[in-house]
Amino acid sequence: MPTLILVRHGQSQWNLENRFTGWWDVDLTEKGVAEAIAAGELLAKHGLLPTRAFTSLQLRAIKTLHLALEACGRLWIPETKDWRLNERHYGGLTGLNKAETAARHGEEQVHVWRRSFDTPPPELEVASEFDLGQDPRYAGIAIPRTESLKLTIERVLPYWESEILPVLASGETVIISAHGNSLRALVKHLSNISDEEITGLEIPTGEPIVYEFDDAMTPGERHYLKDR
Amino acid sequence: MPTLILVRHGQSQWNLENRFTGWWDVDLTEKGVAEAIAAGELLAKHGLLPTRAFTSLQLRAIKTLHLALEACGRLWIPETKDWRLNERHYGGLTGLNKAETAARHGEEQVHVWRRSFDTPPPELEVASEFDLGQDPRYAGIAIPRTESLKLTIERVLPYWESEILPVLASGETVIISAHGNSLRALVKHLSNISDEEITGLEIPTGEPIVYEFDDAMTPGERHYLKDR
Repeated sequence: MPTLILVRHGQSQWNLENRFTGWWDVDLTEKGVAEAIAAGELLAKHGLLPTRAFTSLQLRAIKTLHLALEACGRLWIPETKDWRLNERHYGGLTGLNKAETAARHGEEQVHVWRRSFDTPPPELEVASEFDLGQDPRYAGIAIPRTESLKLTIERVLPYWESEILPVLASGETVIISAHGNSLRALVKHLSNISDEEITGLEIPTGEPIVYEFDDAMTPGERHYLKDR
Repeated sequence: MPTLILVRHGQSQWNLENRFTGWWDVDLTEKGVAEAIAAGELLAKHGLLPTRAFTSLQLRAIKTLHLALEACGRLWIPETKDWRLNERHYGGLTGLNKAETAARHGEEQVHVWRRSFDTPPPELEVASEFDLGQDPRYAGIAIPRTESLKLTIERVLPYWESEILPVLASGETVIISAHGNSLRALVKHLSNISDEEITGLEIPTGEPIVYEFDDAMTPGERHYLKDR
């Protein structure tokens, strides 16, 4: 049975510091490393062993994938990395502490940016220290200057349809190690969640979410592996 | 200029114990981890940054690759894993300490198995604890029961020609993280080393070996990055 495992990366340094991260490349904390290993151990315990892996171009997701795969004895499976699984781009909020942002822009405005489905934050300034225009990993890619969740979905879902779904349909057990918002995009699609509801759905770090698909590639209920 | 970087995995637990390892999956030691990180730091220091990676299906080579790539900020590059880059299969010697093997088979015989170009060790017994017939990573692959260096070359070189060389020829900087004998196969080919000489050539662990290619894809002299 085709099975999909979603894992949000373990805690990053900026999760810890409560800063908007988006496309900025931040490493896992020690806690994040432990979460990633625990995710892999949980997969091993349930005998749910991935045969194909997908992840973003971001260190925290790639390392989470590698740590989880090693913990379940599957570091040898094929892996594909793609920018379309990256976190939502937080534009001009990148690098800001969430409290600072509230002080600068007001609580209400920050709430809109964080929880609105289709209102992107202000664009990242070209001269910003967080501009990734010179990063070779994004060469040839039109790097967004900001993204709403809606815009994030608009690049995650075509990738899902064209690259991941066919692999899954061939009977593989696919693991996707990614980010809060790129995984929200997938969960919204697979669990048919409304625009209003999805922005409030929290994807916990390092906790494998599982979907099993039937022969028509219709996903069943999503469940957290830790609850099984 | 197309550039090739070869890295032999850092010290493994069985390197340390002086046991024949071959296809058995053994982890890096702490020293091996440090060697892999140092290899990546050396690449960073020289600004020699890989854009594509190849490795075997074995933990020690995959982890060496990941540690080295992270150390030079390149964990995000595409990576391909293939059994044809695996270590030489040591057959019935797998798991044996080299001193034990000498006691059992005689020093001279062991020397022949280790240093002959085309004499494979005895085959691995089917009931051996080191039989990989049930390992899912090798599903669909005719796992060798033993290999000489000659037999190792006969599976490494076709892979090199068909999968790696075209990537390199497109202008990429390719890193291959692999094993003493799969790398010997490549070095023999690229540096035009005789059958007699190659078996005595030591590939040191964790030390990047570099070849630069000209427009006709003729490799230049091989050099150790640490000597530059």
